[in-house]
Amino acid sequence: MDRKEFRDLVSPEAAHEAIESLSLEGGIDRVPLEEARSRVLVARLDAELDVPGFDRASLDGYALRARETFGADEADPARLEVVGEVHAGEKPDVAVAEGEAVEISTGAVMPSGADAMVPVEQTDDAGAVERTDEVDTGGRTDETDGEAVLIRTAVAPGDNVMFAGADVAAGERALGPRTQVTPRDIGLLSALGIDEVPVRARPRVGIVSTGDELVRPGDDPASDRGEIYDVNSYTIAAGVEDAGGEAVLYPHAGDDREEMERVLREAADECDLVLSSGSTSASAVDVIYRVIEEEGELLVHGVAVKPGKPMLVGRLADSAYVGLPGYPVSAMMVFRTFVAPAIREAAGLPEPESATVTGRLARRERYGEGRLRLMPVGLVETGPDEVAPVSGDGGGSPGVDQETDLLVYPVDKGSGATTSLAEADGVVSVDADTDYLEAGEAVDVQLFSPDVRPPTLLGVGEDDPTLNQLLDRLERPRYLSVGSRPALRQLREGVPDIAVVAGPLDREVDAEAIGGWHREWGLVVRPGNPEEIEGLADLIDSDLRFINRTVDSGLRMSVERALEDLADDREASQRELADAIDGFDLGLRAHESPARKVISGDADAGLGLADTADRLDLEFVPLGEQRIRVLANPDRTAKAGVSDLQEAIESAGLE
Amino acid sequence: MDRKEFRDLVSPEAAHEAIESLSLEGGIDRVPLEEARSRVLVARLDAELDVPGFDRASLDGYALRARETFGADEADPARLEVVGEVHAGEKPDVAVAEGEAVEISTGAVMPSGADAMVPVEQTDDAGAVERTDEVDTGGRTDETDGEAVLIRTAVAPGDNVMFAGADVAAGERALGPRTQVTPRDIGLLSALGIDEVPVRARPRVGIVSTGDELVRPGDDPASDRGEIYDVNSYTIAAGVEDAGGEAVLYPHAGDDREEMERVLREAADECDLVLSSGSTSASAVDVIYRVIEEEGELLVHGVAVKPGKPMLVGRLADSAYVGLPGYPVSAMMVFRTFVAPAIREAAGLPEPESATVTGRLARRERYGEGRLRLMPVGLVETGPDEVAPVSGDGGGSPGVDQETDLLVYPVDKGSGATTSLAEADGVVSVDADTDYLEAGEAVDVQLFSPDVRPPTLLGVGEDDPTLNQLLDRLERPRYLSVGSRPALRQLREGVPDIAVVAGPLDREVDAEAIGGWHREWGLVVRPGNPEEIEGLADLIDSDLRFINRTVDSGLRMSVERALEDLADDREASQRELADAIDGFDLGLRAHESPARKVISGDADAGLGLADTADRLDLEFVPLGEQRIRVLANPDRTAKAGVSDLQEAIESAGLE
Repeated sequence: MDRKEFRDLVSPEAAHEAIESLSLEGGIDRVPLEEARSRVLVARLDAELDVPGFDRASLDGYALRARETFGADEADPARLEVVGEVHAGEKPDVAVAEGEAVEISTGAVMPSGADAMVPVEQTDDAGAVERTDEVDTGGRTDETDGEAVLIRTAVAPGDNVMFAGADVAAGERALGPRTQVTPRDIGLLSALGIDEVPVRARPRVGIVSTGDELVRPGDDPASDRGEIYDVNSYTIAAGVEDAGGEAVLYPHAGDDREEMERVLREAADECDLVLSSGSTSASAVDVIYRVIEEEGELLVHGVAVKPGKPMLVGRLADSAYVGLPGYPVSAMMVFRTFVAPAIREAAGLPEPESATVTGRLARRERYGEGRLRLMPVGLVETGPDEVAPVSGDGGGSPGVDQETDLLVYPVDKGSGATTSLAEADGVVSVDADTDYLEAGEAVDVQLFSPDVRPPTLLGVGEDDPTLNQLLDRLERPRYLSVGSRPALRQLREGVPDIAVVAGPLDREVDAEAIGGWHREWGLVVRPGNPEEIEGLADLIDSDLRFINRTVDSGLRMSVERALEDLADDREASQRELADAIDGFDLGLRAHESPARKVISGDADAGLGLADTADRLDLEFVPLGEQRIRVLANPDRTAKAGVSDLQEAIESAGLE
Repeated sequence: MDRKEFRDLVSPEAAHEAIESLSLEGGIDRVPLEEARSRVLVARLDAELDVPGFDRASLDGYALRARETFGADEADPARLEVVGEVHAGEKPDVAVAEGEAVEISTGAVMPSGADAMVPVEQTDDAGAVERTDEVDTGGRTDETDGEAVLIRTAVAPGDNVMFAGADVAAGERALGPRTQVTPRDIGLLSALGIDEVPVRARPRVGIVSTGDELVRPGDDPASDRGEIYDVNSYTIAAGVEDAGGEAVLYPHAGDDREEMERVLREAADECDLVLSSGSTSASAVDVIYRVIEEEGELLVHGVAVKPGKPMLVGRLADSAYVGLPGYPVSAMMVFRTFVAPAIREAAGLPEPESATVTGRLARRERYGEGRLRLMPVGLVETGPDEVAPVSGDGGGSPGVDQETDLLVYPVDKGSGATTSLAEADGVVSVDADTDYLEAGEAVDVQLFSPDVRPPTLLGVGEDDPTLNQLLDRLERPRYLSVGSRPALRQLREGVPDIAVVAGPLDREVDAEAIGGWHREWGLVVRPGNPEEIEGLADLIDSDLRFINRTVDSGLRMSVERALEDLADDREASQRELADAIDGFDLGLRAHESPARKVISGDADAGLGLADTADRLDLEFVPLGEQRIRVLANPDRTAKAGVSDLQEAIESAGLE
């Protein structure tokens, strides 16, 4: 087997520097005001006009000469003749002379001659005025003409008037360069009449996923050929947009050099940065690396980080280039650690507020491969301490730590898993020279984003349709369907809040039962039950193909118990009967998978639930009922998520 | 004057309840996967397939039967015949029998018969195998045919294989209802092949600004008619989008009932919520309120909150309706307090992480109007304590508070100001029954958003072009051009970090000078100086119209000093000469405004800077130079923003 080894691995710092040495900036966009929110100004914006552009009444009332109100009060109001009115949006057609006032609306232009205004609440009508001379009113027939007003307060010049430029003055520095525009800034820009805003262009980031086995969501992957959905393209695109870039998806490149080079060149011509996520096959990695090295410039070929070793950094045409690993978790970890900060910087966005929490590691983690390890982790809140028990002397030490305490557990579903990150809250970075972390050791967790909050409930155990509906009533629960046995083990280790277990249990566990329900299990068979299967005996005595569940599953425990009973009846061993069933040892992890094998024709009967058969329009042969039990960690019964679930179980009328 | 008084003001709580009683929800959108980021799921999504859909090799290497490696090690490797190869994306055309192995690529389908794989690093080529029987290779000419491999390690069944459904199992709960989709969730959705995601529709929010005086940015407002730019439409639209809504701008409605009703009805037909921002004239408020009361349903008419008293809540057609005040600051305060939370909830977004900081109030604030007061405030960091002086016994008490200390100052530029919020960081809520807050009192500030950070530097003082350029080199400075006199007063009060002052000072202030420069001031006149103005004397001895700056300005102090000198020469009083200049008492706040009055023909000469004349293509008549001094608060000289500015001054070669 001919296999390309990665050349000298560089340090994570060197990889950061290599990416920083590339230019990702995208120039200047001129966007309309309504699209300027959250964009970043390229230059300072100065006010080109006064705001307001005129002396402006701040209230409804009367514009007048302040000195004519001096000494006025409730007992001795000043009496002024009302010579006209000005509304907002109108040019005043009247001036204020001695002894006169003009009725004015909020926002209207102060008439000339007036230097202050008095709000209407501090005035009274004074009835008609006897005019001493004929005033030319220009043909206006205002009802206020010839009226007088009594001013019951004294005002100073400028009172209740906003002078021109008092809000923003022409020539003033309005917004600085590199400002990320908030709705409040939009207010300022509107006031200045700026309808087009020069902002940093979002860096265009081309995304090229490679691999002959990839299929886009919406299409049908052929599992027998090992086809899988393309996870990286969409995930990385979302990460790019999150970091302030503009993602451009390119068609998949197959693993041959010519096609790969064509797609990479097209992306490089159109984008500021090209991200490939390598097909994980050695040949494809080799092809990409050769394209960049021979047609562009390769700066980094391998980084001492786990996951992410096969990362590439370089240039192609005028574009920057980063090659991400093919495994989705590795690709995203490398993306967020090395690439997202560079995109943010090119977009002009500030580094996000540091979002780091400290917690205790749930279990000992060995490592020591001499590479920086980026370990995805989940969080469980273990505090605040529950209410001290009324009787008994246990119950911890109340008052020691009323703060919420965080337990940190590694999330690792193995290489190639796509869900790990959806089930994780952040990352713990473990130094290259750290060989292990002890259980209980304090670790810093960098949250995936500042708004990440630990789940309200961490549950593990059986996959169950009723449970799924109950979980829907909770806010932000996390549930890992690991099966009954692993769930009990994890509960004993003190990690989850609850374990949901089914079927007969091997041994007791220190836990508080907070509810449960029964479910019907049996054989899921084809519609109409053409093989006339009535029970396990039919599987033993025929060559019908059966699909079982894994030994972790509660259903597996129940079917083994049933087989044992049958063995007693027949005076045979359980092993003999199991061997007689074609496929009894073939256990699938997913609770619906056996039923789906029946649909696809790969099996005649699958172990499953009545509910599943119903949902998938299959026939169901009942074999028994099993009890689902929800067991709470005894230290967490007071946790809101646990009591919420308990309430949901009770209010659903389950028992 | 006929004026509509607001009826019974309701409490802020009652206003919240009224808005909650309206339904803003917009239904369901089905968006393509690439647009699902940050959207909110309407329902739980379950896995409809196993991921991976087949048993999958996790590494490059050899697929084999685990039991054949039992006991193998470096010294005694197991030797297996290589009978074929499988690449990712290919259907295996070979099975593994006893004594055999199949070369396999990462991600490829495990061939039948194999139950584990060994990575290539733990194998060695063993050269050609002497075949003992003729095997039908189906015409394949693989180079590996007839090769053997040495396996240097023992593996257990399942090692280095990801079994079907191990990542996600069919039927498993994938994402819960109300999940806000992260890039990591997009990864999970991609893996499940989901290309269309059912999410909550963003509530459509129609925005209707009313007022005859409003002009949209991009157009030209006629200041003589009191026209102003429409600030509310764009600001509220940005706030709506921030809260997860979709903003729809409607044309301005004028103040007449028929037009207002037509626009409001159109918006109500098309949107889930209509927001009007009232023209502040009493007549317009009256019209809107009547339309809602007569054509829809009016629930709230006036709220005991300042600003925001004239808020309306009701229904029109099938839409919810909220009437916001007309003043931009009031409109935004009401929007964010009452409306944004309702939009967020309708959009399914979680309440943002509480972003509250505690600080000390910079100055005593009186209030006591019996309404909840929402006070926009700015923040200044006053700590960490500066390095203790090497000598001297002052310098505070190191170690007492090494945390950053925050000073909180109210931002209030008066009714109608649009910039207040752009210069504020958050809001202090003052209870209706609080009459005053003492200086130094601890107050909680609700930040406008969780990512708000206090400015790195708070400067106040003179508006100056050189200063503007220096500020551009700093990250997130805030500068309030209040003029020299107010700047000195504020510096004495201990609020800003620096004061930038110009011209002769009345009295000394306790401050540390960190730099300065000279600027040329004089008269800005029309191009070509048609009036042949050579100095102040020409203004005294003619009827040329002059425009001055306000008494707060450093230029005003310099021109008064110059006039004094001239008065000495002429043996006249300064007052006499000032009276002889047409417009000497007419002071404008903005440093460019006098020049702009020259351009508009309203004046023959304006007080200004050489720089301004140059920028606006006007002629400049120099009258003198004045010193700009940058004075730092003596307690804040160690603050990064202050030293950054000092460095910027020095590196610009200013003195």
